Amino acid sequence: MYYGKSPEKHTVSKLPQKLTPLRSPHRGMINIMPLQAGGILTDAAREALTEFGDGYSVCDFCSGDLSDITIPPVRQFVREVLPPFLGCEVAAVTYGARDGMFMVMHSLAKPGDSVIVDGNRHYTTAVAAERTELEVIEGPHSGYPEFRINVDEYEPLIERHKPRLIVLTYPDGKYGNLPDARRLGEIAQHYDIPYVLNAAYAVGRMPVRMDALGADFIIGSGHKSMASAGPSGVLGMRKKWEELVLRKSKAHGNKEVECLGCTLRGVPLVTLMASFPQVEERVGHWDEQVSKAQWFSAELEKLGFRQLGEKPHRHDLLAFETPMFYDISKRVRDRGYFLYKELKTRGIWGLQPGMTRTVKVSTFAADKEQLAFVVDSFRAILGKYG
Amino acid sequence: MYYGKSPEKHTVSKLPQKLTPLRSPHRGMINIMPLQAGGILTDAAREALTEFGDGYSVCDFCSGDLSDITIPPVRQFVREVLPPFLGCEVAAVTYGARDGMFMVMHSLAKPGDSVIVDGNRHYTTAVAAERTELEVIEGPHSGYPEFRINVDEYEPLIERHKPRLIVLTYPDGKYGNLPDARRLGEIAQHYDIPYVLNAAYAVGRMPVRMDALGADFIIGSGHKSMASAGPSGVLGMRKKWEELVLRKSKAHGNKEVECLGCTLRGVPLVTLMASFPQVEERVGHWDEQVSKAQWFSAELEKLGFRQLGEKPHRHDLLAFETPMFYDISKRVRDRGYFLYKELKTRGIWGLQPGMTRTVKVSTFAADKEQLAFVVDSFRAILGKYG
Repeated sequence: MYYGKSPEKHTVSKLPQKLTPLRSPHRGMINIMPLQAGGILTDAAREALTEFGDGYSVCDFCSGDLSDITIPPVRQFVREVLPPFLGCEVAAVTYGARDGMFMVMHSLAKPGDSVIVDGNRHYTTAVAAERTELEVIEGPHSGYPEFRINVDEYEPLIERHKPRLIVLTYPDGKYGNLPDARRLGEIAQHYDIPYVLNAAYAVGRMPVRMDALGADFIIGSGHKSMASAGPSGVLGMRKKWEELVLRKSKAHGNKEVECLGCTLRGVPLVTLMASFPQVEERVGHWDEQVSKAQWFSAELEKLGFRQLGEKPHRHDLLAFETPMFYDISKRVRDRGYFLYKELKTRGIWGLQPGMTRTVKVSTFAADKEQLAFVVDSFRAILGKYG
Repeated sequence: MYYGKSPEKHTVSKLPQKLTPLRSPHRGMINIMPLQAGGILTDAAREALTEFGDGYSVCDFCSGDLSDITIPPVRQFVREVLPPFLGCEVAAVTYGARDGMFMVMHSLAKPGDSVIVDGNRHYTTAVAAERTELEVIEGPHSGYPEFRINVDEYEPLIERHKPRLIVLTYPDGKYGNLPDARRLGEIAQHYDIPYVLNAAYAVGRMPVRMDALGADFIIGSGHKSMASAGPSGVLGMRKKWEELVLRKSKAHGNKEVECLGCTLRGVPLVTLMASFPQVEERVGHWDEQVSKAQWFSAELEKLGFRQLGEKPHRHDLLAFETPMFYDISKRVRDRGYFLYKELKTRGIWGLQPGMTRTVKVSTFAADKEQLAFVVDSFRAILGKYG
């Protein structure tokens, strides 16, 4: 026999036979975790999940190109539904925002090229650039407490560094700031530099169209903001970039090189598709999300916390300085974990365990009543230890 | 407002509200599709699927490194369970075999380097090499009807091309041939060339250990062979390659550059983990799988078909020349689709619609009784049109 004979017996795995008991407890809790609030599945996605769970399930009727599959309607989703939603001419599905970012950088730039990014960029932007061996030029933000990005500051950087690409994070994941993406589109067009909008926290939450902002690429995340299982994402682009970013293999003419043939061959893609009608609908209610976030921010400031990032705030991602919680953490047995535990006891999920100096939340998934309960809980915890 | 105002109203999606009716019909059918037979979820995985469906669900307790998460036990899976199973020193989870292949090529080789691959390599090997801008040198196979790979033929190619890497597909996906991977390990060590084993159809089906075969890397596929939802995969390597392939970011010291920080942040990872105990167990029954495949091959040859690839066959992936089906297709209304339809009517799933000249099947998921029914069905179809 030519297959590998084990020099030692195969170890019997000590993994728990079931993982389920580990997660179910927080089903039904109020979820304010920034990473998770936009990725909670719709009922339609939950159904699709069990139907398409088996490996290679979307490939039942594939004839060689993922984006040509008609059952399930991947072709329709990628070619007809996503482009008008993203305001782009050509769309593709990806494993996630970071993977879309790498596809763009890897196609357009070569090692040694530079890329200008905003000072609030996600870490994956830097890592994708590092994987492509690009020099990252980081623009400034305005610093504490608003950390604003002034896109006009890209101009001197563009003139000095002649970048191959510019990237804007819209909004950033730390403060939920929304810089003037449209103005940066004008700057990008003026200098003729391809402009990538990292909209992982925008696409699927709020109205955002690449064409309206003058971007060349728009990047979205299924698991972050499109009510989808992970890993999943979307990438939109101008038609002029299709030949480069979605170039076909020389050896295998129907396979896209940057997709390694195909990307989302499985359940995350069908959850993305199954949730899409509701995601499209919820985007239309963005104004309500913004007012909910502003209300929540005001309530927390009444408790003595300070909201970081832009004010008035225009996104559900919110960061607060919470020095009173930090003071408590120094004198209680659970140290920094007391806050996480207090909230979990109250049915509130999503604060980073151990974190008390600043708290980062999303008001996206919770309704006003639930958020009022969160505010009351913060007040009660302050009172309990105060 | 700075967010994009839609120049036109958001289109209302025409996607079906539910995708579920599209797939459920073939639940319970006999699945002989080569792509799917090893990726059917276990019951444990099916439970994990619904628990961890929400986006970023594995990140409940992440403190910055996917492979350090203890709830669910990702750390244990990646660090303790996978290495002895794969016979490697260091393991990582990936989006799939192709992504593991790209990670290795992109880390080790630079544009213009060459890589020697076998003549039966999967298309993704060529596409991953193209994405890395490598020159692909393809070794020969023995041609019709066995298409054997003689690994000794790597030697002159290595001497001529001084490749940065050599790749062996074990088994290949077309014929299910298992070349002498161990002998190639000796050759690789003699020439000191890193040796990548693409074991997408081996890991999770049959016993295969990287160390026993003398490879530097082993690549597996969750959705192809580990009873997992897709996209998912595993990558094992010698410790000496960890610093290169799993190098950490300079800017973000706990993030792996080739993983863009992290890979499988969602449901495919938990299905991979949940199925693992049963996958490990089934590997121990590989001899039964081989005898089932050999029996099936013999039965189909009795019907007048010819098995392609190695004989006696040592893998569940099987290809047959079926000229009688092709003859029928030329004179029936459904043309090439008649065979797919006839089988579907009989509850048999997985033949490529339209394909009649050769058929490719896997005997992995079906039991002997079901396979006997497949044989009877082939015979009945021949009789019906004969």
